Amino acid sequence: MESRRYDVTPRNKIVRVPNRASYDEATVHAILDEARICHVGMAIGGQPVVIPMFFARVGEDVLIHGANKGRITRYIESGATVCITVTLLDGLVLARSAFHHSMNYRSAVIYGTGRRLTDPEGVEQAVRAITEKVVPGRADDCRMPNPKELAATSFVAVRIESASAKVRAGGVADEEEDMALPHWAGVIPIREVALSPEADAALAEDTTLPGYLEEFRRRVASKAAE
Amino acid sequence: MESRRYDVTPRNKIVRVPNRASYDEATVHAILDEARICHVGMAIGGQPVVIPMFFARVGEDVLIHGANKGRITRYIESGATVCITVTLLDGLVLARSAFHHSMNYRSAVIYGTGRRLTDPEGVEQAVRAITEKVVPGRADDCRMPNPKELAATSFVAVRIESASAKVRAGGVADEEEDMALPHWAGVIPIREVALSPEADAALAEDTTLPGYLEEFRRRVASKAAE
Repeated sequence: MESRRYDVTPRNKIVRVPNRASYDEATVHAILDEARICHVGMAIGGQPVVIPMFFARVGEDVLIHGANKGRITRYIESGATVCITVTLLDGLVLARSAFHHSMNYRSAVIYGTGRRLTDPEGVEQAVRAITEKVVPGRADDCRMPNPKELAATSFVAVRIESASAKVRAGGVADEEEDMALPHWAGVIPIREVALSPEADAALAEDTTLPGYLEEFRRRVASKAAE
Repeated sequence: MESRRYDVTPRNKIVRVPNRASYDEATVHAILDEARICHVGMAIGGQPVVIPMFFARVGEDVLIHGANKGRITRYIESGATVCITVTLLDGLVLARSAFHHSMNYRSAVIYGTGRRLTDPEGVEQAVRAITEKVVPGRADDCRMPNPKELAATSFVAVRIESASAKVRAGGVADEEEDMALPHWAGVIPIREVALSPEADAALAEDTTLPGYLEEFRRRVASKAAE
């Protein structure tokens, strides 16, 4: 089943190594959902500024939060165009030639304009989505924000207006004439793993590790064994 | 021994949670050196564009390469200001309150202007630094680029003119009145690890894994056991 595709325009068209490009919505969403950090690009006074932010995706909205009156959320809620990029590194590709060294990766670049979430339902949905993005299951196992905390926080949504993904996977692509060279060649897979949770020292003694954290640890740690 | 500090100006001054900020050159360099990918921010026609790139640092220069006439290297060699951001994720901080959920991370944001490297010595230094950044030791164990490959590649250097680092480390910081809540709280450490190298199928049978790759695998995999 093919998902919707983003329109290809001069803004999101991938010119370099276009066979690695995808404009498929499901591909872009999957990369956004796996990434833990996004890099938010702004043009402030005509100058580029890139700041790492936590985020969550709900439909075509990328949700970001920050301190009220913070520079990034203020920029986004101003309605200026934002570029949000996420990158997942999957491997180092060591070719026989320096030239063909590469990385296996999955990246997504999205463009959109933002708005501040002010309605209580929108804010609550953002709080839950952002908390669930930390670890699935967490939104039901922590204290939700009180009015003072909500007042101290800006929640903004960037609607995806244009997007592309770029993916490199697979092995080494050396020149035919280099194949007999005596250099080791291949791929070193890279994975992000979760180590054993470190409980807060002040935790009540009978607090056990919840099931969703056991599951998270198993899932993220098991990637290392793939 | 304290290293040099970058001047604090309106451009690089960290306003939000300033106790996490550092302008120390050694701190910025260490974060750049550990990161495998940087996010290059440009302002093209007044619009932000953020692209992930491989890079290496030599002194105060961030070296980037790409296809000749590629958009990113052309932008950088034009001398326009670039913002380059790298982020290392160290852990997920799960507090008893949604509000105090956080991440442990180390990020660096640098601003600078670029130039194209055209002198053979500068290009050779860039090739070696970029290849060594993939895996230390690799520059002496692969075929260096030939004239055709060099002609197909642009090497650019962005001189760091302004920089800041931001670091969060440590545990949960919950409100006093939340400490008795029944929610598990603590930190889930996150690490990037290297799995076993996957040799190219066409590798000559007597090609063994070189020592620097054994060492790399040991060093990067061992982080998971920290």
